[in-house]
Amino acid sequence: MIHQATARPRQIEFLIELYRNALAAADPMKVLPPHLPAAPRGRTVVVGVGKAAAAMARAVEQHWRGPLAGVVVVPHGASLPLERIEVVEGSHPVPDPRSVQAGQRLMDAVTGLTPDDLVIALISGGGSALCAMPAVGASLEEKQAITKALLLGGATIAEMNTVRKHLSSIKGGRLAVQAFPARVVSLLISDIPGDDPSLIASAPTLADPTTCADALQVLDRYAVKLSTSTRSALGSARFESPKPGDPRLAHHSHAVLACAQDGLEAAAEAARRQGWQAHVLSDSMEGEARELAKAHAAIAIQVQGRGQPFKSPCVLLSGGEATVTVKGRGRGGRNTEFALALAIALGGRSGIHAASAGTDGLDGNGGAAGAWIAPGTLLRAGNGSRTAVDALQDNDSFSFFEAIDGLVITGPTFTNINDFRAVMVEPA
Amino acid sequence: MIHQATARPRQIEFLIELYRNALAAADPMKVLPPHLPAAPRGRTVVVGVGKAAAAMARAVEQHWRGPLAGVVVVPHGASLPLERIEVVEGSHPVPDPRSVQAGQRLMDAVTGLTPDDLVIALISGGGSALCAMPAVGASLEEKQAITKALLLGGATIAEMNTVRKHLSSIKGGRLAVQAFPARVVSLLISDIPGDDPSLIASAPTLADPTTCADALQVLDRYAVKLSTSTRSALGSARFESPKPGDPRLAHHSHAVLACAQDGLEAAAEAARRQGWQAHVLSDSMEGEARELAKAHAAIAIQVQGRGQPFKSPCVLLSGGEATVTVKGRGRGGRNTEFALALAIALGGRSGIHAASAGTDGLDGNGGAAGAWIAPGTLLRAGNGSRTAVDALQDNDSFSFFEAIDGLVITGPTFTNINDFRAVMVEPA
Repeated sequence: MIHQATARPRQIEFLIELYRNALAAADPMKVLPPHLPAAPRGRTVVVGVGKAAAAMARAVEQHWRGPLAGVVVVPHGASLPLERIEVVEGSHPVPDPRSVQAGQRLMDAVTGLTPDDLVIALISGGGSALCAMPAVGASLEEKQAITKALLLGGATIAEMNTVRKHLSSIKGGRLAVQAFPARVVSLLISDIPGDDPSLIASAPTLADPTTCADALQVLDRYAVKLSTSTRSALGSARFESPKPGDPRLAHHSHAVLACAQDGLEAAAEAARRQGWQAHVLSDSMEGEARELAKAHAAIAIQVQGRGQPFKSPCVLLSGGEATVTVKGRGRGGRNTEFALALAIALGGRSGIHAASAGTDGLDGNGGAAGAWIAPGTLLRAGNGSRTAVDALQDNDSFSFFEAIDGLVITGPTFTNINDFRAVMVEPA
Repeated sequence: MIHQATARPRQIEFLIELYRNALAAADPMKVLPPHLPAAPRGRTVVVGVGKAAAAMARAVEQHWRGPLAGVVVVPHGASLPLERIEVVEGSHPVPDPRSVQAGQRLMDAVTGLTPDDLVIALISGGGSALCAMPAVGASLEEKQAITKALLLGGATIAEMNTVRKHLSSIKGGRLAVQAFPARVVSLLISDIPGDDPSLIASAPTLADPTTCADALQVLDRYAVKLSTSTRSALGSARFESPKPGDPRLAHHSHAVLACAQDGLEAAAEAARRQGWQAHVLSDSMEGEARELAKAHAAIAIQVQGRGQPFKSPCVLLSGGEATVTVKGRGRGGRNTEFALALAIALGGRSGIHAASAGTDGLDGNGGAAGAWIAPGTLLRAGNGSRTAVDALQDNDSFSFFEAIDGLVITGPTFTNINDFRAVMVEPA
């Protein structure tokens, strides 16, 4: 079926402009330089991992005075040409042998340092899978299977990373332990609802407040199969990570440079500059994408129909990380699935437009950042709401929006403050 | 394990007072009398079905001038002593032979009327299961199986009732057709998100805009098994209901006496009278109860932490109908499950209290109206959040709250404007 390319409605252009404002608020080139530490007496080593790592490293290169070396790990396609810091690619969202090599590179880079040396660690979302270093007892294959099982089961990112920190020889502060006795300054861009630094990219350079017992509890909650050796190691706390107060991490510091709230505030400000009322519902919405969509639809309908809890017209904004419990065999991510479920919940109601997109530019296995919807979205799919419901049932939201030119496509954005959702409510 | 009865915090007393205000706004004795029609030349027959039917019938008896007879069908325990109108009990939420007898009583009551006669139909939520009259081709057993499958699958009430209206000889306007040529005045109390009168109690006295094809689509969406005879009857549209414009329903009228929004507005007003900011998020929140809880938690946390989208302190209110996709074997309803999931999502955070209760007083299979939570709720369960997560996984929210004295118990309220949720946010 061939669909004519459709011009995007002005409302969607506006919402995507808000999304761009959110991205700009998390641009490493802008947010990183003010946080650079003073140069050390000894060497300066940059290590980094995550979707923003290349851009963060570039920001360091451009603003650092003095010698510099290091390595950062990024997802495929999220690299940038750098001069002094090496960029290597890991695998995402499931780690593979490249991730293991990458993990080794990071460990090597911080090995053999002295108390006079400084490590600048550039940490951002996506980093958990990008570097891997299986702990004794858990093979890479088992870690892959565990990651997949948790992803499919709809585990939250906090749950995922609690597990990851205890099946790894690099995560959960272990990279920082390796850097001992050098000082480590961690600069973080948060994609974690609630912005707990110890969860971002499974925090390779921060002390870990979670325990083996916590990890085991998560694994049992999602009924993940474990090898005898892994279960016994977790049970005996053999994979325990360095805890807050660990003397090897005593002189370290960290700062969160950008987070979901920054992006949402920037978007709200941009909307207000153009005369719109804008309301941030939450910077940390979690939950099943299709259910989250129903809540957004209900509030939008209340605004439009009753002028509650906000006057119409207005823009509703939310961030955080939805999950998708995969049951079908289609293509899609949490943002396209959110948009599809929102269109279904709104049922073609006039006056409501929305866009949902990952700030990393990569939503699930589709290749888009997200999708947008307008009152005509269901009709454009050709077969009324049936097609949309079927697509949702099959987790095939990417294909649905691809067929009607409803995707938001950016390519890698070189940052990551998680999902961005904007719903514009005008009179019906 | 024995728990000492705990005094409810003042915040909970306040939230339950708001709930009582919502109930009062839907009290048939208050909302029905202004809508009574003028007496007819001929007979006046009252028929009714639903959780509010007994109280609605009593309101008619007390305010009607002239002769009166009829029959109303209510759930077990929701009866009231009446003088001229008979009250019979049907089965809820799955119809049984009593429901079939009840359906027959209603049909008989409106049989043989003349154009001079008046039928006052008192319709409220819960009525779909209370009276049943299997259409040719679908046995009561098959209807029971279909109802259960849709309930377990998490179908929305609109989906449920679209199916019910096409497997029945009384629903979807068929009772009104039976009353022809008498005039029918339908007085409704809405428990339907969006308040579409044609969905309340599967609308036995209103024209039905949905079709056999719609019903079949819902059944297939939830992969419900159908007998060959039922599938073929729906496919050939043999169960089609009277449509808007049907001349047999031409002189009928209807009015919605009370709905979720009325209850929420009354609660908001009561809060404001005591100096609180109160915000109605939506009168029609639908979706999986545990996911809806995450959205409420996220907004409450945003209010408390960022003063967005509302200033703290305040009260957030929402109505509508959550669903519970049953996977465990515990006891509970959508309100207790919402409350449990909310407690988990809030993780013991101080300053946030909440209550969730059905306005019918009966939440799922538990026997309570709902439950309340305070910052100490998870701790009171004895074993930290583990117990709560396990209870949620097993759909055992009623037992969880029963053990910690966290239930809201009212008994039947004799009305039904669906779920009522209130979240109070104060500084942490």
